[in-house]
Amino acid sequence: MPLISLTTDFGDLYPAAMKAVILGINPRAQIVDITHGISQAGIREGAFALYSLVPYFPEKTVHVAVVDPGVGTSRRALAVKAGAAGNEQFFVGPDNGLLVPAARRLGNMEVYEITNRDLMLKSGISATFHGRDIFAPVGAHLSKGFPVEDVGPEVSDFVDLDFGTYGIDGPFLFGEVVFSDSFGNVITNIPEEVVLKFFNFGSKVEVNGRNVPFVQTYGLAGKGEPLILIGSHGFLEIAINGGNAALQFGLESGGQVVIKVL
Amino acid sequence: MPLISLTTDFGDLYPAAMKAVILGINPRAQIVDITHGISQAGIREGAFALYSLVPYFPEKTVHVAVVDPGVGTSRRALAVKAGAAGNEQFFVGPDNGLLVPAARRLGNMEVYEITNRDLMLKSGISATFHGRDIFAPVGAHLSKGFPVEDVGPEVSDFVDLDFGTYGIDGPFLFGEVVFSDSFGNVITNIPEEVVLKFFNFGSKVEVNGRNVPFVQTYGLAGKGEPLILIGSHGFLEIAINGGNAALQFGLESGGQVVIKVL
Amino acid sequence: MPLISLTTDFGDLYPAAMKAVILGINPRAQIVDITHGISQAGIREGAFALYSLVPYFPEKTVHVAVVDPGVGTSRRALAVKAGAAGNEQFFVGPDNGLLVPAARRLGNMEVYEITNRDLMLKSGISATFHGRDIFAPVGAHLSKGFPVEDVGPEVSDFVDLDFGTYGIDGPFLFGEVVFSDSFGNVITNIPEEVVLKFFNFGSKVEVNGRNVPFVQTYGLAGKGEPLILIGSHGFLEIAINGGNAALQFGLESGGQVVIKVL
Repeated sequence: MPLISLTTDFGDLYPAAMKAVILGINPRAQIVDITHGISQAGIREGAFALYSLVPYFPEKTVHVAVVDPGVGTSRRALAVKAGAAGNEQFFVGPDNGLLVPAARRLGNMEVYEITNRDLMLKSGISATFHGRDIFAPVGAHLSKGFPVEDVGPEVSDFVDLDFGTYGIDGPFLFGEVVFSDSFGNVITNIPEEVVLKFFNFGSKVEVNGRNVPFVQTYGLAGKGEPLILIGSHGFLEIAINGGNAALQFGLESGGQVVIKVL
Repeated sequence: MPLISLTTDFGDLYPAAMKAVILGINPRAQIVDITHGISQAGIREGAFALYSLVPYFPEKTVHVAVVDPGVGTSRRALAVKAGAAGNEQFFVGPDNGLLVPAARRLGNMEVYEITNRDLMLKSGISATFHGRDIFAPVGAHLSKGFPVEDVGPEVSDFVDLDFGTYGIDGPFLFGEVVFSDSFGNVITNIPEEVVLKFFNFGSKVEVNGRNVPFVQTYGLAGKGEPLILIGSHGFLEIAINGGNAALQFGLESGGQVVIKVL
Repeated sequence: MPLISLTTDFGDLYPAAMKAVILGINPRAQIVDITHGISQAGIREGAFALYSLVPYFPEKTVHVAVVDPGVGTSRRALAVKAGAAGNEQFFVGPDNGLLVPAARRLGNMEVYEITNRDLMLKSGISATFHGRDIFAPVGAHLSKGFPVEDVGPEVSDFVDLDFGTYGIDGPFLFGEVVFSDSFGNVITNIPEEVVLKFFNFGSKVEVNGRNVPFVQTYGLAGKGEPLILIGSHGFLEIAINGGNAALQFGLESGGQVVIKVL
């Protein structure tokens, strides 16, 4: 059973058009929705969602990701192969950085521009919905074993993207918000190994000026109390036990986080 | 792999009961959610969702659609076959117009009243949830090749439905809102070919008294600026780049849209 | 096609990690989302969702349910087999009562503690996401026919849970709210057979001091009017035709409902 994942900012209804197109080309595809709730034009946020999930998908998975404010303009369409030989996954989406962190995480990234019209929707290409007209059909063809080398020319000047800077500056650990989940948990770009160099479980720290304990799991803070932990994504996360940290800390994607051990 | 789509106003939880029933009858069915977010009793809105997606589904797809304010009353249950010979799709749902625009779009519509109790849920028919008790099992049987002619008698006096009037009246192009998507993009009933007779890309127009450019894609308007375009459904659409046009224009399903070329 | 259902309070994104893990272990699994919208830590609410749907799923279904405020603490992980011989279903989730009402409904409940590390995620067990790291992979293995007896030792001292008390007290029928659906329909713990002993369709009753008719289906009350009925779950339900009863009656999970026949 070939597996295709979808990551978009399309909300409701439009993802079904992508699925119809995919299943028309590959009726045996299994489709997994990663999310359709990325903020409109939230490229970095979508890139993080894909990046955080990609290690859990099996080899040969085709990830179709469409957060695409440039749809209908001259931005290119890309297909990417990444991963160790025999253990590759594929990525299809716009050339705006969206696919890059996830593919780079797997290693051995090969990037191709999609120019082969035979792989696109037969009934025509709209100016506004390349998810349906280009990315879904190309993903479906890849899931049937179509060679990624034949989607178009290999390119090296694709748009790059990272999750921003983080680090240690004297008594401070700093970083940025990359994602707020549907509960308002705030996920930063500071990886576990950097956090654990800086402080230990049980440490009291100040997060953006507010006292917060560093714990191993949500239930170890009181109801309604803030906490920081290493989230299931492997990054430092700010949460409120039973509450919304994004609102209470006034943090959204791109927001600065500064931590000081007390 | 037989394909079944679902279109309902059921929100969360209840669609899973339909899926359980379908997969109990046809474990090989692939199920695609078109949407479960239709407004309660929004028959025309649901009809539009189905209508707009049906061209993208492969032959033999069975569309189960349930926006059903008359559930438990005397309204009939229908199964419909439509499309060119060898390329048919099937529709199952209440007799309130919901299925008609999509089926008519495919042509060769044959409409049957569902009366065959053998196709319904064995454990009983509730008064409130025919989606689970009648429409899901009938759809599952059709997806296994059960002949649509055997669900019950053919009928010709089914409830009809269209998307309302539109047209050109002197210097005005007018129509109605049929759907607001989850971003607040407002989709009208005015088809592309009528729009393109009336004005061209780059035209400045007035939409309900407000100046708006007619462009080819969202990114061609400034951030926060209104625009009109031919949406991916093939209809005139009113949008705000990065905003909610339904709110800003005060338009909901059934609302009047009047456009004047400046 | 082996069938796996998911019931969680995970909202968006996290369910996809569970699906990736499941399909990596059993690529042929069909996955049905029951809901990912349970209130955070709403164990009883999640238990009701699973309980209400379980009769509609076919034999051999594996239900993975994760509403798990105790994740990362010492609470045990369970796998349960239930149902008549040859017609069993399976349940995987935390030992907090979540699985019990659904499994007990099927009868012949056998409960096992999951201790077999071979069934868990190879790349490590996080402190915060046992849905992905333990419950999803165990469910996937069960869906491939792995014997439930081999997940770990059988236990009898699992955490129990019921839907609270209800009954008749003189002129009053009383019970509790167990679930509010996405429309604000309020589902009580009072079963159909108890309701029908107390009053009949067409009865006028007082619900928490407010006059409400008892009808067979939503459309039999006026637009915007309250009603009570036997919902599709087989329990007394309070609704507003086209409105939100949970808000209008000020009722949430655990709220008391008192009914008096007028």
